[in-house]
Amino acid sequence: AGFRVAVLTVSDTVASGAGPDRSGPRAVSVLNSSSERLGGAQVIATAVVPDEVSKIRDALKRWSDFDKVDLILTLGGTGFTPRDVTPEATKSVIEKETPGLLYVMMQESLKVTPFAMLSRSAAGIRGSTLIINMPGNPNAVAECMEALLPALKHALKQMRGDKREKHPRHV
Amino acid sequence: AGFRVAVLTVSDTVASGAGPDRSGPRAVSVLNSSSERLGGAQVIATAVVPDEVSKIRDALKRWSDFDKVDLILTLGGTGFTPRDVTPEATKSVIEKETPGLLYVMMQESLKVTPFAMLSRSAAGIRGSTLIINMPGNPNAVAECMEALLPALKHALKQMRGDKREKHPRHV
Amino acid sequence: AGFRVAVLTVSDTVASGAGPDRSGPRAVSVLNSSSERLGGAQVIATAVVPDEVSKIRDALKRWSDFDKVDLILTLGGTGFTPRDVTPEATKSVIEKETPGLLYVMMQESLKVTPFAMLSRSAAGIRGSTLIINMPGNPNAVAECMEALLPALKHALKQMRGDKREKHPRHV
Ligand code: NA
Repeated sequence: AGFRVAVLTVSDTVASGAGPDRSGPRAVSVLNSSSERLGGAQVIATAVVPDEVSKIRDALKRWSDFDKVDLILTLGGTGFTPRDVTPEATKSVIEKETPGLLYVMMQESLKVTPFAMLSRSAAGIRGSTLIINMPGNPNAVAECMEALLPALKHALKQMRGDKREKHPRHV
Repeated sequence: AGFRVAVLTVSDTVASGAGPDRSGPRAVSVLNSSSERLGGAQVIATAVVPDEVSKIRDALKRWSDFDKVDLILTLGGTGFTPRDVTPEATKSVIEKETPGLLYVMMQESLKVTPFAMLSRSAAGIRGSTLIINMPGNPNAVAECMEALLPALKHALKQMRGDKREKHPRHV
Repeated sequence: AGFRVAVLTVSDTVASGAGPDRSGPRAVSVLNSSSERLGGAQVIATAVVPDEVSKIRDALKRWSDFDKVDLILTLGGTGFTPRDVTPEATKSVIEKETPGLLYVMMQESLKVTPFAMLSRSAAGIRGSTLIINMPGNPNAVAECMEALLPALKHALKQMRGDKREKHPRHV
């Protein structure tokens, strides 16, 4: 079966109804157009939460532990303002860090803008779910996905324990 | 008001009086000449402590919690010798990590020398204070500041909760 | 005296006898041919353990605390499969992180293959021992060593407290 993906928009503005969710639909659109390169990924859930650690944690745990999604993308809350806590919420639920994904997202984002250095994104594995923080900027989502796509399908296959996926590069 | 900056030289040699502080004055000079690009930053305090976790922690907490400085640069104590503990002291007081700042400092420093890979610098946010470890080498301070300057003013503005600072690149 | 190095192959397959250890001998060969650039490094021990945190931890602690080796390379167990736990075992025993070594290994490995982003390698210092995770792929070991060689001898000298090693670049 294809990979199941969930998208979590983290934003006080959107959660309160004070503004539209621009990054969520953009992420879904990017995922849909990348579905084949992602081994048949399908977005099976989306949600919006405010910039609060407990709300973010609850969504990540529910999708990981109960809904067993393969991949969760969070959007927003990765900057330097006092309300930006998505990385802290994420680090509190992951069991394994995946620093190489952060490296390539940073590397590619910095080619677009030096403000990319202000992303504090975290990424890692909880159970059989890969969780990746992305910035809230809609364009940044597309750039980050582009950076990950060359290896993301293999990441998801490895997480299902597919040993053959180790062959292209046994890591 | 402009940003308030403090500079902490971490060095057994300097703290004991056995040698002059070359990196501290160099950092102050770099900060002064970058003041405008940093949104009117002013160095309001400098200090020297030995390579001891408790002494480093005390200085970082005093400047963050009581003096409410916006930015603290530490200089030195980031290498591989047994006495190098600045990153450990720093990680024990920060509440949020800022890995992108470390990425760009490493990226730029490696262009100058492969010994840059021996920097174990940490960086992060405590309350409303950004703390960044820099190597003790006076030239390295200038190189690291150069790497950060394209986004450092925005980092400091975001920390004050200035939402408009999210516009150039909403992260 | 020259530096003492130990090599730990982490692999269920090899530990169970179901397959040959290809990365271990390759790492020893790379270390031997790099001995001079490493200040006279000698491989004094090798071992194979399955992908189990306790077994990996025991080997790392024994070599660090009792055998006082200068450098431990682990091979394998750094990927995304459920059994890959080498970074978690390593992070549980190190006292200081060495992120710059991870940066250069990632930087160089990505030039060879985008699958390098799937390495979750950790690296750090326990007592007077430097521990570095490398991927299990035999070619990756050579690539990672190549990335580290320009500064690895200085790292090991700094760990012995050789202050003069700070001169080329005081970090
Ligand atoms: Na890079």
